[in-house]
Amino acid sequence: MPQHHLYQNLKIITYSNGKLQPSKACVVNETPLTIFLNGAELATLICSPGADKELAVGFLLHEGLIQQHSDIESIIVDEKDGLLWVKTTSQVYQTKNLRKQIAGHCGKGRASLYGVNQLQPVQSSVLFPASQLLHLISILEGKSATFRLTGGVHSAALANNTELLAIYEDIGRHNAVDKILGYAFLNKITSEDKCLIISARISSEIIIKAFYSGIPLVASRSAPTYLAVDLADQLGIALIGFARGETLNVYSHTEKVII
Amino acid sequence: MPQHHLYQNLKIITYSNGKLQPSKACVVNETPLTIFLNGAELATLICSPGADKELAVGFLLHEGLIQQHSDIESIIVDEKDGLLWVKTTSQVYQTKNLRKQIAGHCGKGRASLYGVNQLQPVQSSVLFPASQLLHLISILEGKSATFRLTGGVHSAALANNTELLAIYEDIGRHNAVDKILGYAFLNKITSEDKCLIISARISSEIIIKAFYSGIPLVASRSAPTYLAVDLADQLGIALIGFARGETLNVYSHTEKVII
Repeated sequence: MPQHHLYQNLKIITYSNGKLQPSKACVVNETPLTIFLNGAELATLICSPGADKELAVGFLLHEGLIQQHSDIESIIVDEKDGLLWVKTTSQVYQTKNLRKQIAGHCGKGRASLYGVNQLQPVQSSVLFPASQLLHLISILEGKSATFRLTGGVHSAALANNTELLAIYEDIGRHNAVDKILGYAFLNKITSEDKCLIISARISSEIIIKAFYSGIPLVASRSAPTYLAVDLADQLGIALIGFARGETLNVYSHTEKVII
Repeated sequence: MPQHHLYQNLKIITYSNGKLQPSKACVVNETPLTIFLNGAELATLICSPGADKELAVGFLLHEGLIQQHSDIESIIVDEKDGLLWVKTTSQVYQTKNLRKQIAGHCGKGRASLYGVNQLQPVQSSVLFPASQLLHLISILEGKSATFRLTGGVHSAALANNTELLAIYEDIGRHNAVDKILGYAFLNKITSEDKCLIISARISSEIIIKAFYSGIPLVASRSAPTYLAVDLADQLGIALIGFARGETLNVYSHTEKVII
């Protein structure tokens, strides 16, 4: 996949009119950009390909690491490998003190993203009926009271293939997922027959979270990214997107979804 | 504001039928939760109030800091101050090595969030006509080509009060904003007469980014959080939400928005 493409076409399975059949979907790309500041690795951001310089400068600016235009001596970009080196005119910014500051940003270490493919995929032989998943998603939407009032939160639910077991809402989609999977962990709930249903987009980090919790299916009424589909495929997770009304798309491990 | 409330009612100004008039809106809360692991501060997550234990455990689980139920010795929560202490049975997890791992999570240091109120608010006397803002937002929506194809990205634009100057799309809303503000910085664009328009929700971190770039107005077709409104109010930023069709809500610095 060329890194500069914003999206790509995938062969998927669509459930529609009560049938599962082959179709195609356009899926947005997601790619890592690792920023080096004065020679030291600073952070890896997961982003859409393109505008690497602008992204890196915006990131440095809001982390307080540059303040004025003259602070930047040079920026070198390796688009192919997603690497970017910023040199500043002042050396006052020490990487040693930066780790703490960047804890606040949305990104993911390259190693932790790509290290997972050496691990054992999720083990589960449980099958999920498409119509039942659509039913559970419509129940979750009906119960998302805060969203209706404020338009400001995402919801996540843990379900087996007949009912919702827990629902959490949060302003952050990662938080809503962490609350669900933290709940399952605290209550020693088995994962191999459960699915994670979310209201938000499915990015790679959501799939990584499901993987660490051993969840074999993740479903959303919204879109997935290509990296999420790719990881779900490698990690033994069925990824379902655009589950709305009477239709849904299955992007990976289609064998887990039945009529 | 009691921390356990998911949302609250605010007095705002609504633009509708060509008029600006007082109205009310229900706005979702956003609150920090600082997690201490074995006595050492680990991370501060910005989240919806409630389910603190579940959130903390989900976070630790996906950061690889706990693996099984017996790893947890105790969890103590101070709901009022948003503090949580986790003690693990094993001491193998050293905070020294954790900073790197938590760089991947969405959160924000408490100090950087609350430190900004000691800074000078954004200086600008520029006024933005409501009808013009709605016009610019509809143009941004029309140009968001990737979203229409994939449903997977957020868009952000830089505008003055007559036209859009730059547009970026990204799978992450923070990235889209960083690209826009990085673009403005790289091109030495003055900020006091510009606004930031985004397709996504306006959380506190978006307002902080606009503040560091000196942008006096942030507008979205989606919802703001209460913390975003509160910060925008302190930092001299007009916050506009639910800008759709012929109506919009002004949540702070209503003096900057005219007919």
